[in-house]
This record gives sequence, structure tokens and C-alpha cells, in this order.
Amino acid sequence: MRTVVLTGPGSIAVESRPEPRIIEPTDAILRVTASCICGSDLWPYRGIEPVTQPRGMGHEYVGIVEEVGSQVQTVRPGEFVVGSFFASDNTCPTCRAGYQSSCVQRQAAAPDGAQAERVRITLADGTLVATPGMPAPDLIPSLLAASDVLGTGWFAAVAAEAGPGKTVAVVGDGAVGLLGVLAARELGADRIIAMSRHTDRQALARDFGATDIVEARGDAGVEAIKDLTDGLGAHSVIEAVGTQEAMQQALRSTRPGGHLGFVGVAHDVNLSGEELFFSHVHVHGGPAPVRRFLPDLIDRIWTRQIDPGRVFDLELPLERAAEGYAAMDERRAIKVLLRAE
Amino acid sequence: MRTVVLTGPGSIAVESRPEPRIIEPTDAILRVTASCICGSDLWPYRGIEPVTQPRGMGHEYVGIVEEVGSQVQTVRPGEFVVGSFFASDNTCPTCRAGYQSSCVQRQAAAPDGAQAERVRITLADGTLVATPGMPAPDLIPSLLAASDVLGTGWFAAVAAEAGPGKTVAVVGDGAVGLLGVLAARELGADRIIAMSRHTDRQALARDFGATDIVEARGDAGVEAIKDLTDGLGAHSVIEAVGTQEAMQQALRSTRPGGHLGFVGVAHDVNLSGEELFFSHVHVHGGPAPVRRFLPDLIDRIWTRQIDPGRVFDLELPLERAAEGYAAMDERRAIKVLLRAE
Repeated sequence: MRTVVLTGPGSIAVESRPEPRIIEPTDAILRVTASCICGSDLWPYRGIEPVTQPRGMGHEYVGIVEEVGSQVQTVRPGEFVVGSFFASDNTCPTCRAGYQSSCVQRQAAAPDGAQAERVRITLADGTLVATPGMPAPDLIPSLLAASDVLGTGWFAAVAAEAGPGKTVAVVGDGAVGLLGVLAARELGADRIIAMSRHTDRQALARDFGATDIVEARGDAGVEAIKDLTDGLGAHSVIEAVGTQEAMQQALRSTRPGGHLGFVGVAHDVNLSGEELFFSHVHVHGGPAPVRRFLPDLIDRIWTRQIDPGRVFDLELPLERAAEGYAAMDERRAIKVLLRAE
Repeated sequence: MRTVVLTGPGSIAVESRPEPRIIEPTDAILRVTASCICGSDLWPYRGIEPVTQPRGMGHEYVGIVEEVGSQVQTVRPGEFVVGSFFASDNTCPTCRAGYQSSCVQRQAAAPDGAQAERVRITLADGTLVATPGMPAPDLIPSLLAASDVLGTGWFAAVAAEAGPGKTVAVVGDGAVGLLGVLAARELGADRIIAMSRHTDRQALARDFGATDIVEARGDAGVEAIKDLTDGLGAHSVIEAVGTQEAMQQALRSTRPGGHLGFVGVAHDVNLSGEELFFSHVHVHGGPAPVRRFLPDLIDRIWTRQIDPGRVFDLELPLERAAEGYAAMDERRAIKVLLRAE
């Protein structure tokens, strides 16, 4: 079968690999319908995370169950499933508390990469959620978005306590930030300020519920948020970048007593204890426990309440994955969907 | 009148100063019944915070109102009052959200120092709370504790979401940490682990509600907390020190999805964004909005439900303040009360 491999910084190949097989009795094998390229895939692609050997890529996927291990009980061959990027048993105390992405058995859900024709998923029972039936083709992108970017934007909005009566600011206009806007709207926020300087992303942010756009960044961005909030800052701020500048901008844009939800994978970010202390901001984030939200998100997609698949602005066959990486790296695409069949 | 002055690192004098006078129409003048020495007073005393000129010390106080400015409406001469260390208007959006210590008008409540016979309190209406009547003498230490250390420990416990069903760990066995233990008990925590290696403080922690004592610190302290919590960490952790080691110990002792309430004034503390990200811990803290809690705390003290004044293990007349500073600096005393009359 064909699979996407990162062979070195900036170098993507699509190679033939042996078909995946059940290794653990808790595994499942999926025929991948679609996978996609994540902003976090760009870190090793750009060489910011070291690449020491060729590596199967991708951790976002939807597909049809082909085979399950002997202990798998909740999904069956033939079902269409959505899963999250970290596998979880969904039964340990951490999972029961809603933090499946810190499950005591946490591991990569697709250790060999999900940008492939078939994928082995670990801890299938606790990781995969079946849809009510075979989805209409136009629902595939939205269901795929639920696998990571929607779940992550949703977690950020929940961590930021977006809701009625709140003004929410969103730092980052990638797919996660845009879906943070959508999540904030669904959670009932009064006002949603998207921080973006790209007109196409601004337009999508507005469609997803943004009421205001701020183009300024850094200190000027903070000032712009304060100007819109009586000098106080937003009640809720979503950070969806993962850089020092974005994290500081987010922290300083939050009012005292407000909530910062951060989901950008932190790279070389350091928070000053003194600044955090005097900010009076609640800070919470991390790798999104997508599994917590999947049943609800699938339901909202299935009933066409939300259309998160709109973040995919480039769709390619798996074979042309390298073009997709380049488009995301150069910010020509927000999010690239790879059709495996 | 007599007032305590820090004249340089390690040097405390009690000097005669002019009587304080109303400057702003929102001021009040109190005859100080008692004040005390705070752990944070030790930072400049130890030269860790620079001392560039002689400085009146102290920000914790109880006393009797002698005079009020023309705009003061909620407290009257003759009333016994407790106040917090930051003055607040208690009407701005930040105060109404419960963050009086980030009030838009925030300022020192006792800019000339409260370790004195008389003190000028700013923004008296929003800062001071009158007791139901003249307190019995044995209630004075507890009411004084409410002015800072109790309010701070209480905020830490609230920020850490201590409550029924929770295991709470407390890093720091100073007055704030010990009163964090008391607060966690009052908030209904199931289990309270005090981290202390001093037998006298351990005993007081147990009296305040600690169910377990851990003497280990740093990584060994973290392991000890994990051993007591099925390997997961505590649900709620209170950080009441303000050093890098204490903050790391606290963060690493909290389970994924748990809450860290930090109230130690951060000095040279830096949090790794990556560690925070993967910790999945909720982090919240800062200068305690004592004013939020004062009415409730005064009620609990007045009705003798709690006895936080027990943290004072040395009582001295104001004139002997230097002995009190030395005793706290050398950790011979947990908390020193200064009688002004």
C-alpha cells in the first residue's frame, strides 16, 4: 500500500509499504477514506523538530474498519469511524476526567502514519467513534476535521471558557484558530475577535462567527483587543500558534480573571512566572482530548449544524502529498485534505 | 506616631513619623490594633528586592476607624475593620468579577506602611470591611490573618478548585500554605497532603486538616505525591512559596486535568511552555483578591468556625519589630503579630 513518508527536512515521498496488520489485540485496521496535513506536521517538515530517519506521516484520519483485534468490542468491520491522534483506553481515571490525550496508556493512534491507504489504529475501543452510518460524501471533510483541528479548536474554546456573555479573541488564523472561532460561536459567545491579516482567512472566520477582525500583532494586537474591550482585554482568549510571541500576545489580551486556552504546540515558549502571577489569567491547554468531544462533534456534523470541513481549501490525491506540504508550508493553503481512494 | 521602617537590607528601625492625614476624599485613617510581618516583607529585607530608600513596612492590618474622607460611605469612625493589602474600588468590572487585586484603580492600601500606630488606607469604601461589632480580644489574630495570609491561602484553594472528592497537595508550609490547608478543609476536600519538614508546622497543618504529611521536596516530593495518588498526582495543588523549584514541584504534582493555584509571589520563575502544554494542568493564581473573600472569612471567624490566628506563633509590641523580622527570616517563627497598642 501507498504511504506518505518524510525522508528529511522538506522532503516528502509517497512509498509502497507492507499492508498494516493487527499487532495488539486492541488494534484495528482501517481503510483510510481521507487524511490530512496538520500544522504540527510542518514542524519536522521544516526541520524544527529533528528528522533522524524516514517517518510515516499523519495522525488525522477517517475511514472504514476492515479488521479488529480480538479484544476490540465497540467498533466492527464495515463501520465508518473517526478517531483522534492520541490513542486512549477511555476507561482510566484520566480519560474519565475528560483528558484522553493524557490517558495512562497514551500512545500514537497511528504510529506508522495515517497519510496512507490503510492504517493501524491502537487502542481502537477507546480511540475510534463510529458514525451513525455511511456518511454522505460531502460530510467527509467535516468528519475528518473532527479528528483533530475541530476537536482542538473546540478544546481551546472550552479551556478558554467561551460562552454566553463572553468576548473571545482568537490568536492564530490556521485551521485550529478558525475552528476555535466556530467553537466559540457554537458555545454561545457574544463577540468573537479573529486576529488575522489574510483576507481569505478573515472571510472564513466571519462565516464561522467572527464579529470583529484585528490585523495587528504583538503589542499592537494586544492594544487593539483592549480598545475593543473597554481597556480590559477579552474574557476568553484562544492561542492556536505555539510561539512565544503568540503566547504572550494571548496572555496580554486576556483580562484579569479571564481564561486563556492554548493549543498551539509550544516550541521554545517560556512564560514569566511574574507576568503570569500579575495577569490573574486562568491558563489551560495542551494536546486536545479530542475523544471527549467526538460524539458531540460527530452529531453536530451529521445533523449539519456545523460545517468545519470548509477549512480544507486544497484537496489532493494521496500520491500528490508533497504538493500539499509545500502549499501549507508556504501558507498557500489553510489545510490540505488527502484522498486515499 | 511610631512606624516600622526598612532602612536597608536586614535593617529594621522603629521611627517617629507625622500622624497620617486624609489626602484623598476616599481615604480613611485607622488606629491600628495589630499588624504583622509577611513572607513577602522578607524579599526586600533580604535584599532580593532592592531597597533604594527607607520604606514604611507592612500591608496587613486590623484597627478602628478614626476618620474618613468626605466620599467614604461604607465605614464610619468607631468601627473595627479588616482590609486587604491592595486597595480596590470594588465597583469596576474587574472587581465585580472578583479580582479586586487587579482593580482598575489598584494601588497599595497602606502606601506608607501598616506596621505603625496609625495608617492611612486608600479607597476605603472598596477596601475595608467592618466586623459586626468590637471583636473579643482572642479574635484579633484571626481577623488579622484574614487581611492577607488567610485570604491568600483561601484564594489558592479556590484557584486549585479544592473541594469534595478532591485530593489537595500544598507546597509551602509558611502561614499561607498552612491556611491553604485550612481553606481546603473548609471547602470540603477529601484528602489534604501538606508538604513540610518542620515538626511544629506539620502539627499545625494536621490541626488545620492535613491528612498526610510529605517531607520530601523536588522530584522526590513529586514522586511521594504520585505514590499517594495512584500515580496520577493530586487533583488540586496549592503553591505558596514563589520559587522555581516550588512551582515546578507543584506543577508536576498535579494530575492531568487538575488545578494548580499559585500564590507565592513569583521571583525569577519561568514556566516551560512545553511542560505546561503536556501537563494538562489548569494554572491560576496571582495576588489574592482578598476583598472577595473578606465578608465570608470574617463571618467564619466571628462565629468561631475557623481559627486561622493560630499561625501567629510570636507576638511582639510594635517597638520590637526588628526581632520579629529576624525570627521570620531565620524561620524561628511562622508569622509574627505586632501589637500597636
